Amino acid sequence: MSKMVLSILVENNPGVLSRVSGLFSRRAFNIISLTVGETENPRYSRMTVVTEGDSKIQEQIKKQLLKLEDVSDLTELLPDNSVTRELLLVKVKADAKQRQQIIAVANIFRAKIVDVATESLMIELTGNQAKLNAFLNLLKGYTILTIVRTGVTGLKRGLSGSGDIAEYIDVD
Amino acid sequence: MSKMVLSILVENNPGVLSRVSGLFSRRAFNIISLTVGETENPRYSRMTVVTEGDSKIQEQIKKQLLKLEDVSDLTELLPDNSVTRELLLVKVKADAKQRQQIIAVANIFRAKIVDVATESLMIELTGNQAKLNAFLNLLKGYTILTIVRTGVTGLKRGLSGSGDIAEYIDVD
Repeated sequence: MSKMVLSILVENNPGVLSRVSGLFSRRAFNIISLTVGETENPRYSRMTVVTEGDSKIQEQIKKQLLKLEDVSDLTELLPDNSVTRELLLVKVKADAKQRQQIIAVANIFRAKIVDVATESLMIELTGNQAKLNAFLNLLKGYTILTIVRTGVTGLKRGLSGSGDIAEYIDVD
Repeated sequence: MSKMVLSILVENNPGVLSRVSGLFSRRAFNIISLTVGETENPRYSRMTVVTEGDSKIQEQIKKQLLKLEDVSDLTELLPDNSVTRELLLVKVKADAKQRQQIIAVANIFRAKIVDVATESLMIELTGNQAKLNAFLNLLKGYTILTIVRTGVTGLKRGLSGSGDIAEYIDVD
């Protein structure tokens, strides 16, 4: 069982999402997360799918995806050659005292407070999955009301994935 | 035609994603973006779907979704009572001179440079859709190589959506 991150460029045809996701579910392939959003071209959307499964079936899935008429391009994002990010919103129960403590934790992670009410706080954080999980771990002492995560998105580094690529500022 | 943002709590059953997305496509309901990620409970995922369509069909869609066994909870996120965010990664062609100009634009938006190569830059930005679109507009003078967006995610403000909620820090 290994994790695979696929970046799939699809045409905006009706039903494309259910065709792509159906292809995974028919093989009992667990989708851990999926994001689909607009691209530089209104004709296309880009999907990022994180799955876990047997590597033989992973190869099959990739071949099947490329056979779909909707799929224009498919790239596997490997940790070595790509940047992956996820966005998290978390709402935490907080009175005035807890609020100060939680804001201090949020500052360490460079997270943003995006909403405050008398008894709750909402925090936004972006980063790789390890960072998001570490942050949520630190919040475990408080009452987490709701979590929503976009799922992972990512892009290949550099122009062609060649060796001349250095991480510039990755403070995460 | 109006836009609708739905936050749907679903059980992690096999095929749940294709059942939910199939429900939209059968009614020729355009999904503008969809995100699905883990929640505070490993049994559930939370999906955020942005759609556009006739308001009568919107009501039907909500009813049909609630009838699905996979769906545990459904909330419509309205602009007045919720925070919505999206994550963008954009790769721009840039030589040394353009790099400086692009970094200056990124700084104004508090975007992060997450990768640099000899001929390209990758930038990460989080915000509401208007902010993301404004940033992309400013990059139009350069060669945009790839854009990937997670699609919108969001949460209701405050504990109960009551009136005592103030925007705290929303510098976007």
